[in-house]
Amino acid sequence: MTGPGAGPGTGPGTERAGEFLRLRLDLGYDGTQFAGWARQVGQRTVQGVLEDALTRILRLREPARLTVAGRTDAGVHARGQVAHLDIPPEAWERAASSVLRRLAGALPRDVRVWQVGPAPAGFDARFSATARRYAYRIGDGPAGVDPLRRHEVLGYPWPVEVPPMNAASELLLGEHDFAAYCRRRDGATTIRRLLELDWTRTGEGLVVAHVAADAFCHSMVRALVGALLMVGDGRRPVDWPAAVLANRRRDPAVNVAPPHGLTLEEVRYPPDEHLARRADEARRLRTAAAPAGEAAR
Amino acid sequence: MTGPGAGPGTGPGTERAGEFLRLRLDLGYDGTQFAGWARQVGQRTVQGVLEDALTRILRLREPARLTVAGRTDAGVHARGQVAHLDIPPEAWERAASSVLRRLAGALPRDVRVWQVGPAPAGFDARFSATARRYAYRIGDGPAGVDPLRRHEVLGYPWPVEVPPMNAASELLLGEHDFAAYCRRRDGATTIRRLLELDWTRTGEGLVVAHVAADAFCHSMVRALVGALLMVGDGRRPVDWPAAVLANRRRDPAVNVAPPHGLTLEEVRYPPDEHLARRADEARRLRTAAAPAGEAAR
Repeated sequence: MTGPGAGPGTGPGTERAGEFLRLRLDLGYDGTQFAGWARQVGQRTVQGVLEDALTRILRLREPARLTVAGRTDAGVHARGQVAHLDIPPEAWERAASSVLRRLAGALPRDVRVWQVGPAPAGFDARFSATARRYAYRIGDGPAGVDPLRRHEVLGYPWPVEVPPMNAASELLLGEHDFAAYCRRRDGATTIRRLLELDWTRTGEGLVVAHVAADAFCHSMVRALVGALLMVGDGRRPVDWPAAVLANRRRDPAVNVAPPHGLTLEEVRYPPDEHLARRADEARRLRTAAAPAGEAAR
Repeated sequence: MTGPGAGPGTGPGTERAGEFLRLRLDLGYDGTQFAGWARQVGQRTVQGVLEDALTRILRLREPARLTVAGRTDAGVHARGQVAHLDIPPEAWERAASSVLRRLAGALPRDVRVWQVGPAPAGFDARFSATARRYAYRIGDGPAGVDPLRRHEVLGYPWPVEVPPMNAASELLLGEHDFAAYCRRRDGATTIRRLLELDWTRTGEGLVVAHVAADAFCHSMVRALVGALLMVGDGRRPVDWPAAVLANRRRDPAVNVAPPHGLTLEEVRYPPDEHLARRADEARRLRTAAAPAGEAAR
């Protein structure tokens, strides 16, 4: 390592540690008009839009390549997304004082970079993270959802009861094989630690799920929400979602909830001195068994 | 009057009192894709979309005609809008049990009817109202506005200070001739009573103006916000908006703030027993001097 801000050799751009400066970016987006986070040829993606703007504004010779904490699907939003980017230090020196305002001007209004700056030593947006926290928002009133929130709130056609959803959620907490709530990928581990899962009814009349885990497999939050809504509307008993979990197989009765109710609210990291150790642990735990980009959603 | 729910002869549809039932509708909309409230040929307007749906769902022989509490301009939103509608009582009896869900299904997702039902005796959505309350939302951070709120929050390119905006706002409270902040209309009174005008910075980092008056003339809230933002960003002294007011003439230095930051949050009515008296007073005060639809914004 070459001191604070230098990539410690933990990411694809830092094999030659010391030649690159690692930046941390905090960002948000409205996923409505994106085909998800991950760059895809011919599609408008958050990664594509951001990388193109960063390459231009930082005047990079090689196209910018972002590593993200939570790869979100098409239609899923983010307020507290985190990514990193390795660039030549001189590119940062040129741009540092104006980069935030220039990104604000250059980016479309459905994606915003809140902060950008040199990352602490050992930081890896994906592997240093200890947890991702999502919110899933539902409006269950007979008249539908506040038009000004309709892009991020699912209109649910039946009234739901919060206490049974909370009782069912508690039974899912802890480390389990979440295969029943993951889209299957050969060779990918589906063991995750579910840290928080609770529901509240807000003053505005929304029902909101708060869900945190060390990491999520593909469509896991939306599958959990889909199962718990069936408890909330009375169609299934409180112990049903845990019974589905114990089967370790996708149950066709579980509907994956639509993407537009889901927002990545926060990515959590350990104190700076533990960033590198946490990244090593997470990489060991998940990359061996999982295809890249799948494990750290 | 013929008892609760019957129009007391105060609106255009109730000349033959007793033959019509007056309904009160509470509603909200995202103004982004509407050419304002008022029906216009060849334009998508909130009134047009609602009246068409109500005519169909209530199976009215005459097209529904709504009277609204606050006519909003193109791009302005509403959460707490109120309107009334006079219909034959038998149309209500047919539809009452299912009208809310049928409206939810029939209306586009950018307009919602929260409640609909027989109005108390003497109720007039426009003239019984004692006050309209608006919010104007601003994001003044260098990175711009949360993408999920961008449709209802103005991105302001300079940081603003809330205390001087509040000091300047206090000087505007009370009954004044607001001609300096109104779009001029020949023969229309511009005297209004400004009941509340204060600014807060929220936990989410937004700066929000709360503005209530007995009624607003055209573009009044947006002109007041435009003047006060110039105090907030330091370009004008605290006493400038009051000096502009005292001149009773539009000042070209006042920029009318864009519509998309503005939301009608609430319409206030007196207790039921005062509805008819309040409507008579307001009609006397404003219709003589003002063209219909202009006075009661």
